[in-house]
Amino acid sequence: MTTSAHAYGAPTSAADPLAAITIERRDVGPLDVRIDIQFCGVCHSDIHFTRGEWGPQQYPAVPGHEIVGVVAEVGAEVTRHAVGDRVGVGCMVNSCRDCDNCKAGEEQYCTNGSTLTYGSIDRDGTNTLGGYSSSVVVVEDFVVKVPDGLELDVAAPLLCAGITTYSPLRHWGAGPGKKVAIVGLGGLGHMAVKLAHAMGAEVTVLSQSLSKQEEGMRMGASAYYATSDADTFKTLKNSFDLIINTVSAKIDLNAFLGLLTLNGTLVSVGAPAEPLPVGVFTLFGNRRSFAGSSIGGIRETQEMLDFCAEHGIAPEIELIEASQLNDAWERVLRSDVRFRFVVDSSTLSA
Amino acid sequence: MTTSAHAYGAPTSAADPLAAITIERRDVGPLDVRIDIQFCGVCHSDIHFTRGEWGPQQYPAVPGHEIVGVVAEVGAEVTRHAVGDRVGVGCMVNSCRDCDNCKAGEEQYCTNGSTLTYGSIDRDGTNTLGGYSSSVVVVEDFVVKVPDGLELDVAAPLLCAGITTYSPLRHWGAGPGKKVAIVGLGGLGHMAVKLAHAMGAEVTVLSQSLSKQEEGMRMGASAYYATSDADTFKTLKNSFDLIINTVSAKIDLNAFLGLLTLNGTLVSVGAPAEPLPVGVFTLFGNRRSFAGSSIGGIRETQEMLDFCAEHGIAPEIELIEASQLNDAWERVLRSDVRFRFVVDSSTLSA
Repeated sequence: MTTSAHAYGAPTSAADPLAAITIERRDVGPLDVRIDIQFCGVCHSDIHFTRGEWGPQQYPAVPGHEIVGVVAEVGAEVTRHAVGDRVGVGCMVNSCRDCDNCKAGEEQYCTNGSTLTYGSIDRDGTNTLGGYSSSVVVVEDFVVKVPDGLELDVAAPLLCAGITTYSPLRHWGAGPGKKVAIVGLGGLGHMAVKLAHAMGAEVTVLSQSLSKQEEGMRMGASAYYATSDADTFKTLKNSFDLIINTVSAKIDLNAFLGLLTLNGTLVSVGAPAEPLPVGVFTLFGNRRSFAGSSIGGIRETQEMLDFCAEHGIAPEIELIEASQLNDAWERVLRSDVRFRFVVDSSTLSA
Repeated sequence: MTTSAHAYGAPTSAADPLAAITIERRDVGPLDVRIDIQFCGVCHSDIHFTRGEWGPQQYPAVPGHEIVGVVAEVGAEVTRHAVGDRVGVGCMVNSCRDCDNCKAGEEQYCTNGSTLTYGSIDRDGTNTLGGYSSSVVVVEDFVVKVPDGLELDVAAPLLCAGITTYSPLRHWGAGPGKKVAIVGLGGLGHMAVKLAHAMGAEVTVLSQSLSKQEEGMRMGASAYYATSDADTFKTLKNSFDLIINTVSAKIDLNAFLGLLTLNGTLVSVGAPAEPLPVGVFTLFGNRRSFAGSSIGGIRETQEMLDFCAEHGIAPEIELIEASQLNDAWERVLRSDVRFRFVVDSSTLSA
């Protein structure tokens, strides 16, 4: 079947790289679910990835991996979802299911490489096309349920920004008695603040400036510091059990590592393309760690959605039409969004 | 009182930088222990530190922080040690005792800076002088007992090489079912192999060449690979739960990080002076961590000595006279030692 989409690369122009096209979706197989997409979040990764900044891409490329909608059709052997269900799809649409990591429910670390929602080679050899579209067909095991307590539009960013921050917060034990710092208050950062606060941790925001301080405190932070102020790094030395870096730009990693207390870990979920220089002597102090974390597994994604519904947590979004996508990307690059763009998929047209 | 020592810097010559001198030791205070030093290990750090490669030093500098000997005198309030006891002193001779880390028994991470055995400013304002000497005065809390099952000469390297590898192996859970790789088979590396094996882990050595393979296997490794062979990094991809890097030279960190399996950690106890570039995408894979670890606390140092006595583990040493120290340093720099030089302190003369 064909469906409407917004694609990058062909047709394209320098001024408006994203343009409306029509794409093909595969027929619904026995274990597939076809979803009528209602909303899709706009992630900074969409831009990096689609522009080829993280590796070569096939074009036309259809970004979007914060997908929510309603099940329109299910395959004959599908048991987990039914027509009419409110569902979501995140950054992965498949994995090998056979390696140790997949068996452990950590499909995002699939040893054979998970199949990403866009820009990956799918099992049938085609290039995966993402959620800036009206419809998508996904194997049922990679489709999660959106709980009743969550509106679909705000649920969309949870599928990447939510799980990407929830997973390391859980893995490194954010909770009562733990001091957690969140670097950056963008799409990921604002979710990290809300989630860490709901988990019971004491949350500090470390942002370039104080321009979003009021919002940060409202979201659950108990302190807010500007990293442009060198005193911040003196004041907060040896303070945090866990730092989640949501910034993809190159940061002065050693300065942030110095803020960790005994056995503290700085986890980057932001993805700077260049290697970051790490001073081993900084790690020696307080037995510090620098780690990376990539989204989360399917089981944990469902757990995160349920956690958000239970705690009344939702991303703060700006709902846009498909025709605004090019502008939205420019604003994402300027960090000019509070706090996540979400495309209303009903505005797509081929 | 005065005591014999071998010092660096004054008197000195370019050819033989270490020369015999006489140094002062403080009077034994109420909580002090005076130790007649019998043996002192030669650590690579002695060279880096004393040469000022890790920061400016005062001269004459007396290195040595793998000290063992016999208690010769105790202060009036000393309760933990008695004259005649076989004891050891490692890399620290004091700390603030008041910060959270000290209270947690992790004096090596003292927030106010632990007092190192040499090259530190002591509580009385003098420059600390280390174990290339005949006698030392240390507060009793920083003196550990050498268990009966350990000979004094081989016990010496445990005070740095032993605890520096024991502590991260314990902290990161080396034991049955865990695959541990040790990078480098020098003074630290050979202890790491023996300790990890005794803890029940499956141990692999990653060394530049296979020249020490036979010794590594004898010490408890079940596999041995040359890192000069690029295939090693393909063969061992995603293999290890824990990698202990004992090499102080700059290594291709990302290549080694790629050898970690899910949730694996590479811990550096080697101390390259320059920052190491870390690719965040390498950390994203398998949720990897890069950490640092610095020696161990006093309680843990005692635990390590007891563990070695219980398991019959000892460093493999080349016993030398003080007059051989300059040659020994040159050989350490060439990695030409199997596996630790230990100075017989009876050969010191002022």
